Amino acid sequence: MLNLIKSRRSVRQWKSDAVREDDVEKVLDAAMNAPSAGNEQPWQFVVVTDKAVLNKAAGLNPYGGFVKDAPVAILVCGDVRLEKFPGYWVQDCSAAVENMLLAAHALGLGAVWTSVYPIDDRIVGFRKLFNLPSEVIPFALIPLGYPRVKGRDASSRFNPSRVRKNIW
Amino acid sequence: MLNLIKSRRSVRQWKSDAVREDDVEKVLDAAMNAPSAGNEQPWQFVVVTDKAVLNKAAGLNPYGGFVKDAPVAILVCGDVRLEKFPGYWVQDCSAAVENMLLAAHALGLGAVWTSVYPIDDRIVGFRKLFNLPSEVIPFALIPLGYPRVKGRDASSRFNPSRVRKNIW
Repeated sequence: MLNLIKSRRSVRQWKSDAVREDDVEKVLDAAMNAPSAGNEQPWQFVVVTDKAVLNKAAGLNPYGGFVKDAPVAILVCGDVRLEKFPGYWVQDCSAAVENMLLAAHALGLGAVWTSVYPIDDRIVGFRKLFNLPSEVIPFALIPLGYPRVKGRDASSRFNPSRVRKNIW
Repeated sequence: MLNLIKSRRSVRQWKSDAVREDDVEKVLDAAMNAPSAGNEQPWQFVVVTDKAVLNKAAGLNPYGGFVKDAPVAILVCGDVRLEKFPGYWVQDCSAAVENMLLAAHALGLGAVWTSVYPIDDRIVGFRKLFNLPSEVIPFALIPLGYPRVKGRDASSRFNPSRVRKNIW
């Protein structure tokens, strides 16, 4: 587990092969087993394989053009109707995304966290493209596929200067 | 990895045994290998083993009294001076916390995510207790220890009603 956490890296280039449906489900399963405030699980997911939709989604993020090359992408949304503790859906959805990235890596898939929230024009664009209800906030788009290039070797980002003892 | 993600559960009761220092470092290492916006890594950590400080911290969160019983707790903070992309430190720190919870579970430790941000009075209290600079925002306190009780068996939270295809 620790090695998987440390060897995970963002992947933005994929083979054209489709991702197995059961692997997509495993990634979603990992997402939904994230912790959340009061176990509120305030997430919703849209699995995107339609190339026309992926092409449009790629155009909504200036740093996300590579999304059009992914065989599948998962839109993660926060549903404020499901919040028990208002203000925590961003943390809950972030934990879900991290689980997705780790699960993808464990399955031999490559993924990257492309952000929607809190950038207003991306939120508007994704909401329109996916026809989301007003209470469902597009949070992040996670493209997935089999990596076309080998990821960077794991090198730890551990930085002892960021750690203090008992007091700042 | 997938089984570890699915078998992780919140642990709030611990044996009094100290946590090995190298295990604490592995948890911090996992945290700092989380993804972040533009790899900004905007996090800071305070490792708390001083019982007087743990007792005070336990009193700052009405849902966190059990923190006083933990042999160690790690305060995760966001440092806005380190942000390259303003507005993302909460997502970055959330991914770091999820890595910490998974690493702890992999090491046989039990942990739970107790929140500080975005609750104003908790932020004020933790800032004062730990003497944090104004740019450093207390985000979450993660108590760690060897579990006193067996965790619940893993039962998946996978919910197919939360998954749509290509459009809402």
